[in-house]
Amino acid sequence: MQDKTVAENGSSRRSFIVTSGKVIAGAAVASSVLGGRAKEAEAYPFTTGYKYTKLNPQEVGRITYENYFKRWCASSVIAGLVELLQKKVGGQWKSFPIDGMRWAHGGLAGWGALCGTLTGAGTVIGMLVPETDTAEAMVNDLAFYYSYTELPSYTPAKIIKAEIENMTISSTPVCHISVGRWMRSEGVAFLSPERAERCARLAADVAIETTRMLNAWADGTFKPKHKLLFNVAANGITSQNNCMDCHGDNVPSVETYSTLSK
Amino acid sequence: MQDKTVAENGSSRRSFIVTSGKVIAGAAVASSVLGGRAKEAEAYPFTTGYKYTKLNPQEVGRITYENYFKRWCASSVIAGLVELLQKKVGGQWKSFPIDGMRWAHGGLAGWGALCGTLTGAGTVIGMLVPETDTAEAMVNDLAFYYSYTELPSYTPAKIIKAEIENMTISSTPVCHISVGRWMRSEGVAFLSPERAERCARLAADVAIETTRMLNAWADGTFKPKHKLLFNVAANGITSQNNCMDCHGDNVPSVETYSTLSK
Repeated sequence: MQDKTVAENGSSRRSFIVTSGKVIAGAAVASSVLGGRAKEAEAYPFTTGYKYTKLNPQEVGRITYENYFKRWCASSVIAGLVELLQKKVGGQWKSFPIDGMRWAHGGLAGWGALCGTLTGAGTVIGMLVPETDTAEAMVNDLAFYYSYTELPSYTPAKIIKAEIENMTISSTPVCHISVGRWMRSEGVAFLSPERAERCARLAADVAIETTRMLNAWADGTFKPKHKLLFNVAANGITSQNNCMDCHGDNVPSVETYSTLSK
Repeated sequence: MQDKTVAENGSSRRSFIVTSGKVIAGAAVASSVLGGRAKEAEAYPFTTGYKYTKLNPQEVGRITYENYFKRWCASSVIAGLVELLQKKVGGQWKSFPIDGMRWAHGGLAGWGALCGTLTGAGTVIGMLVPETDTAEAMVNDLAFYYSYTELPSYTPAKIIKAEIENMTISSTPVCHISVGRWMRSEGVAFLSPERAERCARLAADVAIETTRMLNAWADGTFKPKHKLLFNVAANGITSQNNCMDCHGDNVPSVETYSTLSK
């Protein structure tokens, strides 16, 4: 645990977990617990009619960037990938509604939750990759890329909105934190042209990284870079490891006595 | 503002905003600011080949509930709606990959961000409703329903996993907070059969509410219950209004001097 997590009754969450006698130490246990309990929802293959051909990441990035100012984050990432797939593959892509996930902008219609670039990228990955564990590994890698890379790094050949100077590490896929950290670094406000420019370039970065992963998958060389972020053993719940980033010293406890049952 | 939001330099965010001379008072200004700045990404109609026919909400709920234990949150909501649409409408739905959004479970592959039920519901709404502002209004209403209704209220005719006792108000569409609040109330752990049962029933609730909205939309009687949660004027960023729920007394400031520009 990166965080010193203290439950409200004064005991550490770690002591809750350890004294439960069922969960002892981190990842190995998490893995065995997950392995034992989650079989009912194991990954499985399914059928999809959406096909892929390798795309030029920079071309995808450019289309995404240019589309952002009309379509915002989620649909611009989808546009970058799907407009090219409509031309180069056709088939089912021709009837795919590129704007169907537009509601995901602003972390769901402005609620500031999950960054819409990831919803958009995940939608295309999910339609294409007919093994749910591979699709999930790709989206997980993308969330790591988004959260722990200095972004935006994409530089448009022709800048549409504004010059911007800074890249930041969001440490999370959550929209308002990611945007807020960059705004603080750049010294600009949400409704500034600079912030729009940043999100457009970030969308391009996410679309480019997605294309690289899909190209590797098409070549049969995709291997996940990161394990799934399974923090149930450590934190008692679906979560990241950096609880204090948001919660400060008051990380809530789920107040349960083991990760398994009553 | 429900929160007393204090910037790190000791000035309140409100004073930042007010003294900028550009933003004065809440919603009216937010609306005019949005109206003025966001025209570049205004809502617009688009074409979709996915068609809808009115569905029985309880039937959708039952299928969603039963699918949860195999498909988890996002794909179980999609299954509840799409399995019926495949039978009753056919067409493009026949080739829609129900498992394509499975990665969204656990708030994106276990990261604990946006609840996957909303990603799943939003995907079906987005594919169907070819006016982006209407689709966004539906997803926004659904996020309000999810966040401010006691859930889960769905009671299966045949319980699959466990008896559960409690309903909670999540106050957010964020997975780990929503799940954690319920776990605390019920006194159970994440990997318990009770928690799985809760998420399955919650998925059914979200699928039922989605069906009600889509049925109203099919009848031409859908009207948004809630305004979009546009908190940029109040909080300087995409966000909810209950910042202190997560951040306690340390609500971060975006440290910008107006909502408009440098």
